[in-house]
Amino acid sequence: MDTRQAFLSHCQSNLAALRQEGRYREFAHLEKLAGRFPTYRWHGPAGVREVTVWSSNDYLGMGAHPAVLAAAGRAVEEHGAGAGGTRNISGTSPLHAALEAELASLHGKPAALLFGSGYIANQAGIAAVLEALPGFIVFSDAKNHASMIAGMRGAKGAQRVIWQHNDLADLEAKLAAAPAAAPKLIAFESVYSMDGDIAPIGAICDLAERYGAMTYLDEVHAVGLYGATGGGISERDGVAGRVDLIEGTLAKGFGVFGGYLAGDAAMVDYIRSTAGGLIFTTALPPAVAAAALESVLVLKRDADRRAALAERAATLKAALDAAGLPRIPGPSHIVPVWIGEAELCRQVARRLLEEHGIYATPINYPTVPRGTERLRLCATPFHTDAMIAGLVVALQSVLPAGQAMAAE
Amino acid sequence: MDTRQAFLSHCQSNLAALRQEGRYREFAHLEKLAGRFPTYRWHGPAGVREVTVWSSNDYLGMGAHPAVLAAAGRAVEEHGAGAGGTRNISGTSPLHAALEAELASLHGKPAALLFGSGYIANQAGIAAVLEALPGFIVFSDAKNHASMIAGMRGAKGAQRVIWQHNDLADLEAKLAAAPAAAPKLIAFESVYSMDGDIAPIGAICDLAERYGAMTYLDEVHAVGLYGATGGGISERDGVAGRVDLIEGTLAKGFGVFGGYLAGDAAMVDYIRSTAGGLIFTTALPPAVAAAALESVLVLKRDADRRAALAERAATLKAALDAAGLPRIPGPSHIVPVWIGEAELCRQVARRLLEEHGIYATPINYPTVPRGTERLRLCATPFHTDAMIAGLVVALQSVLPAGQAMAAE
Ligand SMILES: Cc1ncc(COP(=O)(O)O)c(C=O)c1O
Ligand SMILES: Cc1ncc(COP(=O)(O)O)c(C=O)c1O
Repeated sequence: MDTRQAFLSHCQSNLAALRQEGRYREFAHLEKLAGRFPTYRWHGPAGVREVTVWSSNDYLGMGAHPAVLAAAGRAVEEHGAGAGGTRNISGTSPLHAALEAELASLHGKPAALLFGSGYIANQAGIAAVLEALPGFIVFSDAKNHASMIAGMRGAKGAQRVIWQHNDLADLEAKLAAAPAAAPKLIAFESVYSMDGDIAPIGAICDLAERYGAMTYLDEVHAVGLYGATGGGISERDGVAGRVDLIEGTLAKGFGVFGGYLAGDAAMVDYIRSTAGGLIFTTALPPAVAAAALESVLVLKRDADRRAALAERAATLKAALDAAGLPRIPGPSHIVPVWIGEAELCRQVARRLLEEHGIYATPINYPTVPRGTERLRLCATPFHTDAMIAGLVVALQSVLPAGQAMAAE
Repeated sequence: MDTRQAFLSHCQSNLAALRQEGRYREFAHLEKLAGRFPTYRWHGPAGVREVTVWSSNDYLGMGAHPAVLAAAGRAVEEHGAGAGGTRNISGTSPLHAALEAELASLHGKPAALLFGSGYIANQAGIAAVLEALPGFIVFSDAKNHASMIAGMRGAKGAQRVIWQHNDLADLEAKLAAAPAAAPKLIAFESVYSMDGDIAPIGAICDLAERYGAMTYLDEVHAVGLYGATGGGISERDGVAGRVDLIEGTLAKGFGVFGGYLAGDAAMVDYIRSTAGGLIFTTALPPAVAAAALESVLVLKRDADRRAALAERAATLKAALDAAGLPRIPGPSHIVPVWIGEAELCRQVARRLLEEHGIYATPINYPTVPRGTERLRLCATPFHTDAMIAGLVVALQSVLPAGQAMAAE
């Protein structure tokens, strides 16, 4: 067989199918302007144009915070562009160690461990736990992120049981149905990024205790944003101490790059010592660690920024509702606007960008189930009232009439 | 079952075993000093001390190149600390696109695709290929890196056949024994990082053609370092055009951070459109892309730096040989010094650091097979004759007498 030809044909027909379904993704070239967030320069087919970005996960604008930029710039000058090695092979700087100590403290845990991204933290961290004991059963929320699923799938010998999203009764039924002697892990998120709803962490911990399960919580869309010091929903709800492993990212609320796990010292040390996704890869650049450290420190005290985010989200939701625009309701800073069809979603996003200078990413399968396509909006503290008003007008003009009702 | 307690016991006993075997890794805290590479500040138990690092994979010192640092600093100021989104969700800047174009050109390929690291490029890239066609057989060199193995293991339904390291006869025998109708991928590296030997890429491509296999080449330890413009061993040997997918890192020879794949446009677009490890993770920070782009551009023309690396490696090897110190011979810039036992390896490294101010990481299982423990040294263009002489004296004083003979 000519493998090259066969693979090429597969690629071509697959890409053609994506195009036909309206699911082919073209990455918009968006130039972030540090001083003017959320205004970006869009490099499009018709030239360069300023646009307002509504789909950034730099939720608090920390990626443009002067102290964070200063820390990054200083570390580049002092320590260079890269770490030059894996954590074990000359790549650990005092900055990595300081950031890990700060993240541990953020979550009230004895230890934390950096990874190249939140994706790898989940993939490597979950697999490391599940492979530690024979017969592990992982109870996975149905809406868990792809990176958590990658960790579960990658774990040899573990069994995966999916429970209905945020459904405590279903989780309990499934825990009760599993063999009492099997080791169990409950894996879930705090803020679910595509719907914006929030897990009942405390109640899940109750079930974990009742059935002898460990808990693994992804706080990627919550760290920096919730809790008195930015420790996420587990801090806000006062339950961080009951969660065994907390996973987070430095790339969203903290505005930089990288991921981490926080938990018991021996557990974290074990994962550090065994996880391939940590051992066999270059450490984060010292400047990334320095910028993230500064961001964590700033957000520890800057509750006003968190309050501003909440206020902006509430204002955006109220404006959409007042205009009769269809949104998926939820208690968090994430505001999904309902579309329900892939090609329409792409068209709406294209028209917002080209006709209104508004960037909102169309969210299609496989990121969300087919038939639930949406625009996912976030108002950061830097989105003004005028920007919100402009968004509402633009959405009214590009959404088909009757779209509001279709969301019901 | 109390899962938490069971997992904790597992962690504790596992860590105790690592300590007993001399394989417990403590990450030395090494502060890179951009202007003084390879001199670092070691933050040790007895305070801070300057040391010479011999185990950096910043092979050419590009992590401290003024133009690279300037590019990083400028991009931080202009574009901020992080991308703020996945590639698809507002995280693609013109810098990402420019870097991809430059990497494609570096390898003479139509397209390239950035990943968060070389590890993820391998893991996600190999899995994406192997899952594309049913019954894929991957022929994997026995010394392939953990990240490639992660990609093969993660690919559902693919079969893995391991051929003896760099052994064309064994590879051919295994290709011939496989069903002619099965799709086949040959996965291998150019420079093997722990031994420093180099694959016969052209001859492997001959076999690939004969048996209808695709080729996947990891050039992580060669890009920037070999070839007229830094395109790696495949450029040096004039065979890049015959390799289907070339994988590289921006974190070693280029001195920054991140990984990539280069190849046919439809193949790369397919991987871009389907690989979870690309889709579901935050894009590299614009400043990382800017620094890496500058580094690739500088190294395209800076053949002198490559020549200096070769000269320094030859000088280091000659000095070790003249002193009768045991090294694993090889044609590349990587110079492994033989130890052969985990606890001894750790002791030797500890004494080099504490008594001689020389940092060389002990390389133990699982990075290399048990019984082949070593120190892995690299002389960059910034390692002086005096540093080499100091290293030789230090090695002579800390290596047990007779160690040279033991290497035979
Ligand atoms: C729930 C969740 N977990 C983990 C990740 C991965 O984090 P990172 O972007 O740092 O890889 C993401 C998104 O990127 C996410 O949405
Ligand atoms: C052969 C090989 N491939 C891939 C990688 C991973 O590259 P990165 O450090 O960019 O993750 C490494 C080492 O880190 C390696 O040695």
